[in-house]
Amino acid sequence: MRPSGRAPDEMRPISIETHFTKHAEGSCLIGFGDTRVLVTASVEDRLPPWLRGKGEGWVTAEYSMLPRATHTRGQREAAKGKQSGRTQEIQRLIGRSLRAVVDLKKLGEHQITLDCDVLQADGGTRTAAISGAWVALRLAVDGLLASGAIKEDPISGRVAAISCGIYNGTPVLDLDYIEDSSADADANFVLIEGGQIAEVQATAEGATYDEESLLRLLRLARMGTDRIFAVQADAVK
Amino acid sequence: MRPSGRAPDEMRPISIETHFTKHAEGSCLIGFGDTRVLVTASVEDRLPPWLRGKGEGWVTAEYSMLPRATHTRGQREAAKGKQSGRTQEIQRLIGRSLRAVVDLKKLGEHQITLDCDVLQADGGTRTAAISGAWVALRLAVDGLLASGAIKEDPISGRVAAISCGIYNGTPVLDLDYIEDSSADADANFVLIEGGQIAEVQATAEGATYDEESLLRLLRLARMGTDRIFAVQADAVK
Amino acid sequence: MRPSGRAPDEMRPISIETHFTKHAEGSCLIGFGDTRVLVTASVEDRLPPWLRGKGEGWVTAEYSMLPRATHTRGQREAAKGKQSGRTQEIQRLIGRSLRAVVDLKKLGEHQITLDCDVLQADGGTRTAAISGAWVALRLAVDGLLASGAIKEDPISGRVAAISCGIYNGTPVLDLDYIEDSSADADANFVLIEGGQIAEVQATAEGATYDEESLLRLLRLARMGTDRIFAVQADAVK
Amino acid sequence: MRPSGRAPDEMRPISIETHFTKHAEGSCLIGFGDTRVLVTASVEDRLPPWLRGKGEGWVTAEYSMLPRATHTRGQREAAKGKQSGRTQEIQRLIGRSLRAVVDLKKLGEHQITLDCDVLQADGGTRTAAISGAWVALRLAVDGLLASGAIKEDPISGRVAAISCGIYNGTPVLDLDYIEDSSADADANFVLIEGGQIAEVQATAEGATYDEESLLRLLRLARMGTDRIFAVQADAVK
Amino acid sequence: MRPSGRAPDEMRPISIETHFTKHAEGSCLIGFGDTRVLVTASVEDRLPPWLRGKGEGWVTAEYSMLPRATHTRGQREAAKGKQSGRTQEIQRLIGRSLRAVVDLKKLGEHQITLDCDVLQADGGTRTAAISGAWVALRLAVDGLLASGAIKEDPISGRVAAISCGIYNGTPVLDLDYIEDSSADADANFVLIEGGQIAEVQATAEGATYDEESLLRLLRLARMGTDRIFAVQADAVK
Amino acid sequence: MRPSGRAPDEMRPISIETHFTKHAEGSCLIGFGDTRVLVTASVEDRLPPWLRGKGEGWVTAEYSMLPRATHTRGQREAAKGKQSGRTQEIQRLIGRSLRAVVDLKKLGEHQITLDCDVLQADGGTRTAAISGAWVALRLAVDGLLASGAIKEDPISGRVAAISCGIYNGTPVLDLDYIEDSSADADANFVLIEGGQIAEVQATAEGATYDEESLLRLLRLARMGTDRIFAVQADAVK
Repeated sequence: MRPSGRAPDEMRPISIETHFTKHAEGSCLIGFGDTRVLVTASVEDRLPPWLRGKGEGWVTAEYSMLPRATHTRGQREAAKGKQSGRTQEIQRLIGRSLRAVVDLKKLGEHQITLDCDVLQADGGTRTAAISGAWVALRLAVDGLLASGAIKEDPISGRVAAISCGIYNGTPVLDLDYIEDSSADADANFVLIEGGQIAEVQATAEGATYDEESLLRLLRLARMGTDRIFAVQADAVK
Repeated sequence: MRPSGRAPDEMRPISIETHFTKHAEGSCLIGFGDTRVLVTASVEDRLPPWLRGKGEGWVTAEYSMLPRATHTRGQREAAKGKQSGRTQEIQRLIGRSLRAVVDLKKLGEHQITLDCDVLQADGGTRTAAISGAWVALRLAVDGLLASGAIKEDPISGRVAAISCGIYNGTPVLDLDYIEDSSADADANFVLIEGGQIAEVQATAEGATYDEESLLRLLRLARMGTDRIFAVQADAVK
Repeated sequence: MRPSGRAPDEMRPISIETHFTKHAEGSCLIGFGDTRVLVTASVEDRLPPWLRGKGEGWVTAEYSMLPRATHTRGQREAAKGKQSGRTQEIQRLIGRSLRAVVDLKKLGEHQITLDCDVLQADGGTRTAAISGAWVALRLAVDGLLASGAIKEDPISGRVAAISCGIYNGTPVLDLDYIEDSSADADANFVLIEGGQIAEVQATAEGATYDEESLLRLLRLARMGTDRIFAVQADAVK
Repeated sequence: MRPSGRAPDEMRPISIETHFTKHAEGSCLIGFGDTRVLVTASVEDRLPPWLRGKGEGWVTAEYSMLPRATHTRGQREAAKGKQSGRTQEIQRLIGRSLRAVVDLKKLGEHQITLDCDVLQADGGTRTAAISGAWVALRLAVDGLLASGAIKEDPISGRVAAISCGIYNGTPVLDLDYIEDSSADADANFVLIEGGQIAEVQATAEGATYDEESLLRLLRLARMGTDRIFAVQADAVK
Repeated sequence: MRPSGRAPDEMRPISIETHFTKHAEGSCLIGFGDTRVLVTASVEDRLPPWLRGKGEGWVTAEYSMLPRATHTRGQREAAKGKQSGRTQEIQRLIGRSLRAVVDLKKLGEHQITLDCDVLQADGGTRTAAISGAWVALRLAVDGLLASGAIKEDPISGRVAAISCGIYNGTPVLDLDYIEDSSADADANFVLIEGGQIAEVQATAEGATYDEESLLRLLRLARMGTDRIFAVQADAVK
Repeated sequence: MRPSGRAPDEMRPISIETHFTKHAEGSCLIGFGDTRVLVTASVEDRLPPWLRGKGEGWVTAEYSMLPRATHTRGQREAAKGKQSGRTQEIQRLIGRSLRAVVDLKKLGEHQITLDCDVLQADGGTRTAAISGAWVALRLAVDGLLASGAIKEDPISGRVAAISCGIYNGTPVLDLDYIEDSSADADANFVLIEGGQIAEVQATAEGATYDEESLLRLLRLARMGTDRIFAVQADAVK
């Protein structure tokens, strides 16, 4: 039995509120249950040095948790003077996941930065961030297309992410914080609408796992991302 | 004439949404027009080393802007590896302002940290932060009183802050971003309910100012903070 | 009664020794009683990136205390690897105060950096720094005028600063360290010769204050800066 | 065809030279083809603060590349003043992988740090590091058992890692640098002797991949780690 | 011929003004010609962790140049966020030189920090710092003896330092900035009164040198330090 | 008697294995007894800003110890976020020593960086680094000559370094770690083939020393470097 009373393949409610802030070219507040992440997409003409003059663009991401997004207050990374390994790992994952559905040549010489700031955390912040980042990116790119800054749509499809894990011996979908803290294995799947895989990260925590479990988790993830794809579609309609 | 069409002594709408996040002991989302600041109050038993064993507590603050709270994206301070002078100046001001209405002995050996994160900026972020921080602090202290962790209320009254300035030669109340960018003088007032002053910071930007102007700005600030005191009272009722 | 036996409106002796170091384009050692600050003005052709090519100059300041300027040794900021919030707040204030009397267009494409290093501290280091920085700046600008590097004098008048405070319930002028440590309110005033105000920073420490007190502190500050203006005039004659 | 002329399921020669350095409690130089990683295991009694007094130990890892391990010289992280996100991600992976086969209670209050320094890089540095770290750990733990510092062997089995990828549309085993630079997908598998999985990280680079490909990569990885398990066994005999 | 017109074995005037600042337990302003270094000695009871509880003390040093001590302004190390290699090398040398004449056991559990801040530089700042540091240390230790905090004098003798070099083929004593910039070899000698050597650092800059030159430089250094010993003796009388 | 049983003028075995890594333009693993340093020479066209466009090159060095090169594990400098004063002092010495035998004009606009990474430490790591760096540099420059990138050999001769010290009152050659830890004086000599001196650094540790001792140490150093010159010659033949 899951602490929340959910069935093994039951997700938490997903919500996406677009245009949550007014300055960014695209933005949304995405909720996976009590997890809430504010994502903004900022379009800039300034490219990283190694990409200048190549006629293509770049999509990157930054991630942060507000100090009191969590049960107990964490030290602010700006005050500590550096980003943790966890933060860097997550923001690299978000950027990579979004680039899996973007044709950088079609994007032209624009850089889009996806800032993912966790306002409240209850497990699954990185997968919520990826799923919300797609929405903010979609809105920002729509603006570029509308203004004529780019001609062709560089986004080839939707991308979404969800965590699954083995909790008390049972594969379950969409871990919340309590489950995440004591799961035997914890996996994040980044999937593309249509079935392709962008990233699998499946980690043994308390106990190692076998191939069959990996496949069951992947199957759960497909159910989850199908649900997210629908909410994304609705949000950007 | 003000760009927004407001009268010189007209404030923007103020909104306070309490309990905006669920983990913090106190929290609110405060809005001064389009400026929106999320404030959380975190209660901890761990005191800074120089206060341990003295039987009193501490109230401190941290401040940050999300990278895209502003018109153009700013670099994330955690990525730069340090907090700017502006950030440090503001968070010192917030902490000092709140301590002006707190009896640290009555607080007992608790530290309350007020995290003020600007989700969207349109001028007046530090004054919104101070005004919202009082609400989050009030809620957190109510919790300490309710649980019996402290016996006497350490908060002696309300504190609120507002910016005023001389815009096109006219003293005006509650500067928004456009006014702030081209004001001749820019002043932040931190006032206590009942008339006392906690802090005045009045800075010449384009042109210096005289004593009469300082007094007129202070008078406008009193009007502004009276309005904020009412909204604060309503929020914590 | 003040610990030093001074009357409430009595300043400590002020001394200014110009040309204290030989390499800088302008320099002085300023003393407010036992507080001694070495100020140098360095003229450079290299402007900050955001000002290049605009045909105007820049005036900025840096501030530091020697580790043993104070009663007990403080850690060296270069060894800690960062400047404190207090240091940054002060150096921003010094630069802003000097810019209040400089026409940056008349300065041409020169940057003048005012380095204020506290050799010995006994209260009022930031106000001594501002008052001495005006002298070093004046000397450096005289050099630019003499060499023909600039045609018109960019300095429109004198600027000086002094601290006042409420000590044991009485407004007093020019706080020394002992008074500063236990004052109820502490205010720094940056005034322009002729009566205009460049900056007011008035902070409640032990107790909040009222409008009448603010005005009395301002009146004391006028007395103090009039005295400093005379010493400055003498120093640069 | 692979640039090296290897068959899709053909690994590069693996070599392990134990006791490569004399001070460490365990050490080896591991080679996967031209990739060479020096791993040392250091046993210390000092535990991280959050583990003290719990009667259990800790296994952690650090990773670094010498500046000229690669084709072109990279900047030294100690000179830059911070570890890159890639470095932190890899050292977290190494530590987690080793902990998957260690019973921290049986290890007692000892911390073992696995330092993995890449002397020469040609693809697969993180998987070589994990595979070599097991050897260094085994040697260090043997020392603890021999000296009587611990009673029961805390290591439950072997762990090894290998990279696989989709190169020119074909799943291949043990990517070298040239393949890694242009692979469509790049996966790192950390496997336990006997068949269990400790970690899967499978990332789309040029093109996304499907479930069938993931399974074929996993099958190749099993072949690879079986070979590594044999070389490890030989090395610590 | 030397640019200053000095004879090869002629030093610049040396001046030592003791008690230059009032808070430090010992202090002086030392001048070697236009080079001026402010040295303070701070006595603290707090020892570095690795010395606590051993019944002995520690003597250490820090060194810094004010940004405009030099011909052109250098960036402030506190602003850069780190001390240069040159700074660290010099402060290690100063500490080591002073410890050569201090019996740390007799010093008892006190740490004395010698802060050497260069107010004006014209060559020889590190040797002036060492020579002045001895004076500040002597004064601080006299205070410890006078107060009874220590019983026996831990200082076994005087230490002084001077730079020599090969300038235009001729060995010369006490290099000033112009000579230092173009010397073929540059040597710093730290000598003990009575003839013993604490440190020799002799570096080829433009051309390597032979054993005979090294000995001639050492002979010049003896002349120089004998002069400094006399001025030190006079200063602390 | 020396702990190792060596005679006072007896060196440890010296070994140089060239081409230890395959990517660097020059490389060797040098051993002085159990001290082993991997040196790579990297040739780049990118010069430091202050040398660009002057038609000459630059030779510089970086130095690091692997965390467990030593008896007990040291913290990794990349993890600490800065290089120690000792590291910076050593890498400055290595660069300066090599430049003593290089004509930077003949090197043309190339920068050669010598990375010296200590794999195992047993005293004398800086002198082994200098001696090995010459070999790596020689190999890299041979490559530039062979490819026609430069026309004339910029290397004027060999440079080698060795440590000597006064151990138990006796001057000894080539200190190992045990001797180094308790020597009364510790000297590093950087000598040029043919007899010239590039650098002397002779430091009193436990006891100061006299001129006669300095000369005896220099004589030992000549014996040591003569031996190193022979091994260097053999290595690059």
